[in-house]
Amino acid sequence: MKQGTILSGMRPTGRLHLGHLSVLENWRELMEKYNCYFMVANWHALTTAFDYPKVTVEYTRELVLDWLMVGLDPLKSTIFVQSEVKEHAELHLLLSLITPLSWLERCPTYKDQVQHFREQGRDITTYGFLGYPSLMAADILLYKADVVPVGEDQLPHLEFCREVVRRFHHLYKREVFPEPQAYLPELPLVPGLDGRKMSKSYGNEIPLASNPEEITAKVRMMVTDPERIHATDPGHPDVCTVYAFHRLFSKPVVEDLEKSCKKGEIGCVPCKKRLTSTLIEFLTPYWERRRELERDPDYVWDVLKEGGRRARLKACQTMEEVRAAMGIEIPGQTGSI
Amino acid sequence: MKQGTILSGMRPTGRLHLGHLSVLENWRELMEKYNCYFMVANWHALTTAFDYPKVTVEYTRELVLDWLMVGLDPLKSTIFVQSEVKEHAELHLLLSLITPLSWLERCPTYKDQVQHFREQGRDITTYGFLGYPSLMAADILLYKADVVPVGEDQLPHLEFCREVVRRFHHLYKREVFPEPQAYLPELPLVPGLDGRKMSKSYGNEIPLASNPEEITAKVRMMVTDPERIHATDPGHPDVCTVYAFHRLFSKPVVEDLEKSCKKGEIGCVPCKKRLTSTLIEFLTPYWERRRELERDPDYVWDVLKEGGRRARLKACQTMEEVRAAMGIEIPGQTGSI
Ligand code: SF4
Ligand code: SF4
Repeated sequence: MKQGTILSGMRPTGRLHLGHLSVLENWRELMEKYNCYFMVANWHALTTAFDYPKVTVEYTRELVLDWLMVGLDPLKSTIFVQSEVKEHAELHLLLSLITPLSWLERCPTYKDQVQHFREQGRDITTYGFLGYPSLMAADILLYKADVVPVGEDQLPHLEFCREVVRRFHHLYKREVFPEPQAYLPELPLVPGLDGRKMSKSYGNEIPLASNPEEITAKVRMMVTDPERIHATDPGHPDVCTVYAFHRLFSKPVVEDLEKSCKKGEIGCVPCKKRLTSTLIEFLTPYWERRRELERDPDYVWDVLKEGGRRARLKACQTMEEVRAAMGIEIPGQTGSI
Repeated sequence: MKQGTILSGMRPTGRLHLGHLSVLENWRELMEKYNCYFMVANWHALTTAFDYPKVTVEYTRELVLDWLMVGLDPLKSTIFVQSEVKEHAELHLLLSLITPLSWLERCPTYKDQVQHFREQGRDITTYGFLGYPSLMAADILLYKADVVPVGEDQLPHLEFCREVVRRFHHLYKREVFPEPQAYLPELPLVPGLDGRKMSKSYGNEIPLASNPEEITAKVRMMVTDPERIHATDPGHPDVCTVYAFHRLFSKPVVEDLEKSCKKGEIGCVPCKKRLTSTLIEFLTPYWERRRELERDPDYVWDVLKEGGRRARLKACQTMEEVRAAMGIEIPGQTGSI
């Protein structure tokens, strides 16, 4: 018996990279203990990419392949696309009717994001973007998730969701939803090639779905200790990105490496070579699995179809309760009790 | 072959009254010439009644009975409930992603309505209420309606809808929707018992679904020429509500009545009696039809079920085009091509 329900998701906006790995490994663990819903948040992706959405479908496929390759299991969890469960839109609409405008306007992320995009010369102050936390609340509440893995920056959205739940219960005198709790896993931070946080927007990422040549090239680009001129100069692993990766991926030998570097016993070139083969060795099973999965071009869509079916089943149940609580269920119609 | 598509609707917020009759008579005519979708706008009703929605279902039944009793024909038109076609929420959401917040904020009705409700001590500044024109645009566009019968006050919403259509076509380089045109029928204005506009909020209305006793009582309450003390005093029909009703319902004898009143040949009591019997005579066939319809408690729900099915069919077709234009159709899923 699983101990609770989790909803988590990612936007289909491009290939996943090593920076996402720890989140996915965490999901893989959660999948064993919780009733997990993993959602491709394609409507959310559109809130900021409404003017170039054409790629969403392709990215959806890539995203799900990445998920499956690292071990998310469609038999142990529900993997689905947001847009295939219309009830997300329905609940979002119903919640929007009881959500004071001010709750959304004061969301700290709203102004930050608007500013962020404005600096890139893009205006995203749409009605839909303002309502993003309400759609996220609908995502969570539709599955009655009690736990939501989030980053620090998403905490205000979860608090918003809890406020909406309380207001719903207060207005309709019926407890329909759990108040979802945030789960903030402590995940190792993966640096990018240049030492900053790994992020596609910095162009410093190593894709998860890759190949030996790309990994070799990427590791070659990694920033090392800038004070090391000769291979025999004593190095400073703390400022070296290669070393940061060794700490994550070469745990058994990392202490030896550190000593060798500090003593100037190992050059950066062989040190990078070592990391390259470690990464390739680590990722190869994933790549092989991905190639397996890609062989059937329909597989991802089949997974999503089945996941969508399961998600809709739960979503429809919840919506029946929501409509009953609000007193708007139409007798004898689709989806009414 | 019908010449175009019309979408029109009413909110289920209470019994219809004589003030609605001309709209319904107009719908009855349109139904013969156009492909008509008549929508019970229950989600719209919730935008301003989210805190007491329990009545919506009951009012839905009453509203549809009123429609059917005056002759709306479920075989000649599509009669359905908004909430039973989830695509309204889906399209509303998708449109909201391309709708600048400012377009909604500057809607003249928004501030007016907020003010109106504030005077009644109610705060309706919710996210959903702000988005009302976007939901209305979705209602219209889902059926590709080219004509929308509206009142003067709804013209800005229709212009908003057209703006959204243009933006959609501009962004996605595909013409999916017609730009819907307003149809402003010239309808006679029905005064209420007190001479002001007939409106439930003034408490001066005569319900359509009624009975002889109620009609008798209501006509008795009607305001006549206040200067007439004795039945033989010359009257002033222009300021008399009873006369206004005679003009609408007693056309063949209205000139004679006018003369008799002006000459002081007819008293207000018999004049009202005449109106009473005219109204009862006019409404009786409707009441009889309504009693027929009420006999089967499921009839309204059956009509709405079939109408919902037809509406969904069209709505799903449109959504396929919308998703294709936006590039977000997920292969092999529900509702994808
Ligand atoms: S030897 Fe390795 S850890 Fe030391 S600076 Fe060079 S790359 Fe970094
Ligand atoms: S006689 Fe009839 S029309 Fe004349 S004032 Fe009386 S009620 Fe009005």
